[in-house]
Amino acid sequence: MPHPDPKPALAPQEHLQPAQRVARVQPFIVMDVMNQAAAIERAGGSVVHMEVGQPSAPTPGSIRAAAARALDHGRIGYTQALGTDSLRSRIARHYRDAYGVDVAAERVVVTTGSSGGFILAFLACFQPGARIAITAPGYPAYRNILIALGFEPVAIEVGPETRFALTPELIARAHRDKPLAGVLTMSPANPTGVVMAPDAIAAVAAECRRLGLWYISDEIYHGLTYDQPATTALSADPDAIIVNSFSKYYCMTGWRVGWLIVPQRLVRTIERLQQNLSISVPYLSQVAGEAAFEATAECEVIKAGYAENRAYLLKALPEIGLGDFLPVDGAFYIYCDMGRYSNDSMAFCRDILNEAGVAITPGLDFDESRGARTVRLSFAGSLAECEDAVSRLGGWLKRR
Amino acid sequence: MPHPDPKPALAPQEHLQPAQRVARVQPFIVMDVMNQAAAIERAGGSVVHMEVGQPSAPTPGSIRAAAARALDHGRIGYTQALGTDSLRSRIARHYRDAYGVDVAAERVVVTTGSSGGFILAFLACFQPGARIAITAPGYPAYRNILIALGFEPVAIEVGPETRFALTPELIARAHRDKPLAGVLTMSPANPTGVVMAPDAIAAVAAECRRLGLWYISDEIYHGLTYDQPATTALSADPDAIIVNSFSKYYCMTGWRVGWLIVPQRLVRTIERLQQNLSISVPYLSQVAGEAAFEATAECEVIKAGYAENRAYLLKALPEIGLGDFLPVDGAFYIYCDMGRYSNDSMAFCRDILNEAGVAITPGLDFDESRGARTVRLSFAGSLAECEDAVSRLGGWLKRR
Repeated sequence: MPHPDPKPALAPQEHLQPAQRVARVQPFIVMDVMNQAAAIERAGGSVVHMEVGQPSAPTPGSIRAAAARALDHGRIGYTQALGTDSLRSRIARHYRDAYGVDVAAERVVVTTGSSGGFILAFLACFQPGARIAITAPGYPAYRNILIALGFEPVAIEVGPETRFALTPELIARAHRDKPLAGVLTMSPANPTGVVMAPDAIAAVAAECRRLGLWYISDEIYHGLTYDQPATTALSADPDAIIVNSFSKYYCMTGWRVGWLIVPQRLVRTIERLQQNLSISVPYLSQVAGEAAFEATAECEVIKAGYAENRAYLLKALPEIGLGDFLPVDGAFYIYCDMGRYSNDSMAFCRDILNEAGVAITPGLDFDESRGARTVRLSFAGSLAECEDAVSRLGGWLKRR
Repeated sequence: MPHPDPKPALAPQEHLQPAQRVARVQPFIVMDVMNQAAAIERAGGSVVHMEVGQPSAPTPGSIRAAAARALDHGRIGYTQALGTDSLRSRIARHYRDAYGVDVAAERVVVTTGSSGGFILAFLACFQPGARIAITAPGYPAYRNILIALGFEPVAIEVGPETRFALTPELIARAHRDKPLAGVLTMSPANPTGVVMAPDAIAAVAAECRRLGLWYISDEIYHGLTYDQPATTALSADPDAIIVNSFSKYYCMTGWRVGWLIVPQRLVRTIERLQQNLSISVPYLSQVAGEAAFEATAECEVIKAGYAENRAYLLKALPEIGLGDFLPVDGAFYIYCDMGRYSNDSMAFCRDILNEAGVAITPGLDFDESRGARTVRLSFAGSLAECEDAVSRLGGWLKRR
């Protein structure tokens, strides 16, 4: 009996392609820079890393010890969708301790990083097609999450004249063009390092209230300021939605845990969303997050390192011809206009990486139109790395 | 000088309410049952838990040990958006070892639980408003995630006559009504415990191909079968999208880590989505997931316990008058028609909880129309708990 023919291979279904909507979702350029830097290192080259937006310090030991104890205990199961009661209470207490603001624990939502918080907040507040104002330059995932979920980011160009922040006038103008549904600000800001003063935040909050818009305040870099502490938008308006995370100040990027503070009338909606979209947030990360609030001493040491790096770079970068940036109020980024050298930041960064061995991020990640003339440097590493980077960059700019 | 007036309290902006779209997102009823059971226990009452869909066994020790080593090492940072290279390779190898199917590691996407996988797969494949066929009864989050993201779940009623599974005929009929964009099946299934035979999966895959639909196969309960092993849809069609997770077989619910296998042409789209929606998956959970594949011996011992529970319940439940269910092929659920006692499963479960001290889940969580006559029992606990539950339920049904 003849052996049956092997099953014919199925042709790929070429008509089944990725959905058109997500074609507008851009990659994180910084991640491509990381890949190129890794390739150079694999080939034996040396790279100073100033591209990635994460602390190079490990998570403080006391936080890891708390997670280790929970690991020993063994049961690592689902928690309540909104987070463990004890973490929610601890976060609420943090608002009293750090800002003197009363927040009921029921208004705290533990999230899978700030990323998970944005998804919940956007879905809970906005109807499909809703227009949400963000800044350019700004964190690229805002634009891309909004597009992926069917909303319309409205990028408002800001510059040094408003210290890279939204103002009531800018919001009102965008709203006149076509009604907005919400406004999203970040302070301290990525990539500019700018902190909004209390009255600047209060003015934005008041304008949102006047126009009937949701106000979402991304406070992920709180704790990392070098002059005045940052203000929470809750001080200006208890209806503001706060997005925060343990990633930056507490050096916990890989744990993926953050939180939202939301008005009471959104809690049940967000609970139902989280039950379905996530079930719950990683348990060990919630345990670690609770311990993080007791790790301030370790975190302040790490922050002192950033402050040293910052002081050095504010002085050294202008000396090598890269001085066109605002002083860094917070976070760990310098956003530098380098238009006198190039109007192609992709090529500029690629050449610096290949020829000087310094990885920095093209501004196009943060500003689709004007980012061709800017770059972002992250100084979340060591002072030695900053010095090495300046020496390499200075030499390269001179040879150029 | 008079003290300035205190700032007047701002009125809540009552016109700013949760978005209408998410009003259709239902809560997980099982989570309400959990809360009621917890209240009884806080008041000193005793409850046997058969409501929750998670193993009561802790994560195997070898898996926890791997995470503990990573914790010691200290650096818990972002990984590549698609997951660490080593975990993606290890998952690819699992497909060769367990199913004899070749999967390139590049087609593996590590996700934040299967929940994260669904979000990525739905957004990558479907345009807003797309209709996706699912079963009723079925996992409630399918319906709710689809609604939350702007898609249209098409719940196709299935019953014992097709062993609670979709068939080509059912899919073709729903597609004739109004075109579908995709089909989602689960085997072994929650809540029915049914495993689709290889030819049943192949028939669904072929019908999807004939009609030009994406086929998504949820294989989260693979490994937990009591007769024949479950088939991956990849055996039938390399274009199928596979959703899986470490939660169930490996007792890792609280780690929130799973994976997708996707066609090559979706990889870059999903990478861009994950970069923006999640940045990356929790690092310790990825380390643990890699170790899980070496913990099969421990997992098989736990599964042997489920098999004992199952054998006991298949015999004991009919003896107390709860015999209207299909034999459980896989997973750890019994989905029981109790229409001879009640046509209000919410009240029925509430009474059982209050009067007999057994927590079970109303079928309305899984089937919005017919679930008023069904309940789900989870047997992921101990045999002693199953025996206790049967004794309590039997006494209660007799007294009734």
